[in-house]
Order: sequence, then C-alpha cells, then structure tokens
Amino acid sequence: MIAIDWGSSSLRAYRLDTAGVVVEQKRSDRGVQACDGNFAATLAPLIADWNDADIMLCGMIGSRDGWFEQPYQDCPTGIDGLAAAMVPVEVPEFPRRRLWFVPGVADRNSTEVPDVMRGEETQACALLDLLRQGTHLLCLPGTHSKWITVRDGKIVSIATAMTGETYAVMRRHSVLGKLMGKDDSRFDAYAFDAGLRRSADASGLLHHLFGVRTLGLFGQFSEAALPSYLSGLLIGHEVRASGLFSRTPRPAQVHLIGNERLIDAYARTLVALGVGVQRHSENLAAHGMHRLSKALILAS
Amino acid sequence: MIAIDWGSSSLRAYRLDTAGVVVEQKRSDRGVQACDGNFAATLAPLIADWNDADIMLCGMIGSRDGWFEQPYQDCPTGIDGLAAAMVPVEVPEFPRRRLWFVPGVADRNSTEVPDVMRGEETQACALLDLLRQGTHLLCLPGTHSKWITVRDGKIVSIATAMTGETYAVMRRHSVLGKLMGKDDSRFDAYAFDAGLRRSADASGLLHHLFGVRTLGLFGQFSEAALPSYLSGLLIGHEVRASGLFSRTPRPAQVHLIGNERLIDAYARTLVALGVGVQRHSENLAAHGMHRLSKALILAS
Repeated sequence: MIAIDWGSSSLRAYRLDTAGVVVEQKRSDRGVQACDGNFAATLAPLIADWNDADIMLCGMIGSRDGWFEQPYQDCPTGIDGLAAAMVPVEVPEFPRRRLWFVPGVADRNSTEVPDVMRGEETQACALLDLLRQGTHLLCLPGTHSKWITVRDGKIVSIATAMTGETYAVMRRHSVLGKLMGKDDSRFDAYAFDAGLRRSADASGLLHHLFGVRTLGLFGQFSEAALPSYLSGLLIGHEVRASGLFSRTPRPAQVHLIGNERLIDAYARTLVALGVGVQRHSENLAAHGMHRLSKALILAS
Repeated sequence: MIAIDWGSSSLRAYRLDTAGVVVEQKRSDRGVQACDGNFAATLAPLIADWNDADIMLCGMIGSRDGWFEQPYQDCPTGIDGLAAAMVPVEVPEFPRRRLWFVPGVADRNSTEVPDVMRGEETQACALLDLLRQGTHLLCLPGTHSKWITVRDGKIVSIATAMTGETYAVMRRHSVLGKLMGKDDSRFDAYAFDAGLRRSADASGLLHHLFGVRTLGLFGQFSEAALPSYLSGLLIGHEVRASGLFSRTPRPAQVHLIGNERLIDAYARTLVALGVGVQRHSENLAAHGMHRLSKALILAS
C-alpha cells in the first residue's frame, strides 16, 4: 500500500509492504498550500513507480482547502471509528486504484470551544494498539501543537496550542525579531532554560514576551541566544498550561511525536518539569495509515 | 512652552500657556520610524508659528533610534528625579531655543527581567501630584501596554504586556486572520465578552488562540465578530496576569490612560472583573511635560 502524509506545507509518500514495513519513501515541499489545487498532478510523478492499488491519504489534503473534504469525526474515536468513516474515492488520473482519505477528528466536548486536528489522528493511530489500557497523553509539537488524550485505545480529547506559529510570527513580524540574529538553527541551552524558567512566573505570557525585548536591549542575552530564549518561554507556557500537572493521577510520561529537533526541546522541557518522555518518529503517520488499512480490509 | 509627544508612529505637538492649559495642538504621522533621522526638519514646519523658547520632548524620540538618546532613569523615580536628569540641548535648526528630552524609565528591581518605558512616564507625571499618598496602579493600553505602580508620588515599578502588538501580528500574519473580516472598527460586545471569559480558563493563551480559529471554523462567531473575540481574549489575559488580583490590598481602581476606544475596552474588562476605573485622556503627556518644566525652572 501507499501512504501519503499531506499537510499544509509538505508531502511525504511512503510505500509499505503487507507487514507494514516502510520499503520506500519520498518527500516533496508541495504541501496543500503549494499545489494550486492540482493534487492529482502533484501526486502522480511522486508515486509513478509504485503500482499499489490502495492509496491512503491523511492531513490537510482532507480539509476544505484540500482534495476531497472529509467531515471531522467526533471524539471519542479510534481505529475502528475512523476506518468506518472512510470511503474509497476513484479519480480518472489514477484508474483502477482507490484513494482513502483519513478524516480529521474534532473534540466538541472538552470545553465550550471546539478543537480539531487533521493528520495527527493518523500518527496517533500507530500507537493506539499499544495504549489499549489506561489513560495516556500524546504531544505532537509543531506550528499547532496537539495534545491528545487516549483512554483505553481511543482518542478522547484534543487540545491545540499555537506555539510554533506564535514563535514564527513574533520572530518575523514583531519588534522581538529586531534584536535577534537571523539564524534559527543554533540551540542555546542556557537561554532556552532561562525562557523555560521565566514561563513559571504568574505575570503572564504577554508580559514575558516584552521581556524578550528588554533582555536583548540590556544585553543580557545575545542576538544569537534570544531565539532559544523565546522558544523556551513559549514551550514552557504551552507545557505548563497543558493540563498535565492538574491531572490525577498525573501521567508518568508523555508520548512525544515529531521531528527530532522539536522533540529534543519538548523532552528537555518535560524532563525539567519532572515528567518522563517516550519518543516516536514523525514517520508514525505511515504506520497509522497501515493500521487503518488493516481495519478497512477487515470491515470490507 | 511647547510639548512634543513623539512616539514610534506619531507626533503630537502642544502649545501650553504658563498655567499649563493647552492653547494649540497639532498632529502628524511622522513618528520616529517615519522620519529617516531628519528630526529637526520634521519638527520645524509643525511649530513654525510658535516662538516659545523651551521645547520639551518625550517618547521614542529620546531612544537609540531617536534624536538624542537619553539613558533610562531607574525606578523609583518621580518628577524631581526625571527633571534632575534633563539637560538642555541646542541645535542649529532652532537657534536660541532649548530642547529638553524626558528620559525613559527602567525597572530593574521587580523581577530578574528588566522593564522599560519611554513616553508613558511623562503621562504618569501629569498624575503624580494627585497620587502623592498611597499605592496606585496606572494602565496605559496600547501596542505595548504599560502597568505602572505609583507609591507616594513616585513610579516604583513597570510591567509591559505586548498585547496590542500580539493582536496585530496574529491578526495580520497568522492563520487567525484568515477567518476574520478586514474591518477592525466594529466592536462586537458579545464576542469581546466571550473572549474575556475564555481568558479565565487555565488552559493557557497559546491554546486559547487556536480556539479563535475553531470558533470561526465551526461558525460559532462570524468573520466580523472574531476580531473582538481575539481582543477580549488578549486583554483578558493581560489584565488577569497584571498582578492586580494578587495585591494586598487590591487597588480599588485603576487609572486608565489612552485613546477612548482602547480605554473603553479596558474599562469594560476591569469593571467585569470587579475593579473600578478612572479614565484620563491621551493628552496627559502635554500636562506631564508642563509639570516637568515647572520642576526644571525651580531647579535652575
């Protein structure tokens, strides 16, 4: 089978054997936002050498701006619920093949404000069999970080934090960027930890953000260190407000899913706050789609 | 005397009589950022008809990016302290006249992260005589909202919240703007109050920001109402984290200084949270400079 993880800004294509092992993979920066709506034409050359009949797709490709909009499935849901909502789509560009879009998941119960995800539910699906008993917390950091609670193998709630996007817009478009170097690749552990400590103060994120400016203004952190300080500050706020510390019993660990650099920063934060972590790779989406495909076959 | 309130994005010129009454005033959008460093040439035509010998200036015009950089004065400070730090400057473009730049104020004691202001201290100076006894809280909402604590007529601490700038960058540059109408001028009281209530939830600002998106996505607030929701959310976070509610005794009222529309929103928030307000106009800077000029004369 073929598994396509197609988000706003990137496209990852995986070919898996029947046992669920990734045998080939390709990557493109033609995310949903960069396709001008030509989804079939974007996908075709990428998987031209792969003749598998079933093509599973997850992520923003199933959104209103994507190829075929899939309604959100409500929490609680799991592998069987998601699979039951999926119907095969045939398109002229891929004759005699079936496209299966994984729906996104909505949480309309946890608070009066709904929450949603598209793509992350598929990554979670790769772990649901392992989390069949008890309550577990998954964190998928990114532009919009997702905190997913799994209970007895089902996704029961979602909370999204706009951490990555807030970092990016404050860095690029606010006064904070003026005192920062252009290089984002250097991680300054001392500055990150200082931002993390600052996030414990009750005086609020909006005030702490201004502190990023004054610390630069008074030379307490260099241009090169300030991006790490801002990162520690924001991730600290996200993690502290995640509800992790108000749960009884407090989860002993958090499952972290994402790219290595982000996971490093979140693991550092969680460990500093006394919480264990279990790390998983970004490629989990491919395994989640394989797991869903097995459920589809069983159901058909 | 002439009083110039010269910030990053605007310039206000006032002519006052010896009693401190504003007799004429002019306004320009040639803020410090829009002058290309030609400060004398920008100011000259604006005050061409005014022949007063003393020209007082406050705001970003005294910053590193301004005309003559003035070092920050440290808290606690007041009218006498600020006046003592001011020295007359003569420039060839204004012969036989004296320019007096009001220094900014820094707070390096309240927390390990310093805080600063330039311009707001001058607005505060207009009120310091009235606040000669006891502890008082001033709030000057804006791009960078300032919360100033005055004790026995002196500025003792400063806390800045990046509320206005966070609103602007999230609105213009983040995904949140996509679901909002272009019109910012319409105030939707219902949406503002909903954002304000949401800010009481412990799940954190970064999470609440994503809720602005989902509320739009699920049609719970219209394009036209979402900007007010975001505004209520951010102002709610700012006010709740301002320390107002953790002080003993809690101040019975907050002095609000700024433009009418912003003051309306902050007054609405404070009153909803059970705190009284006293409103002051933006023109307070002119009166603050007049008060400082009297102190300069007494000292000379």
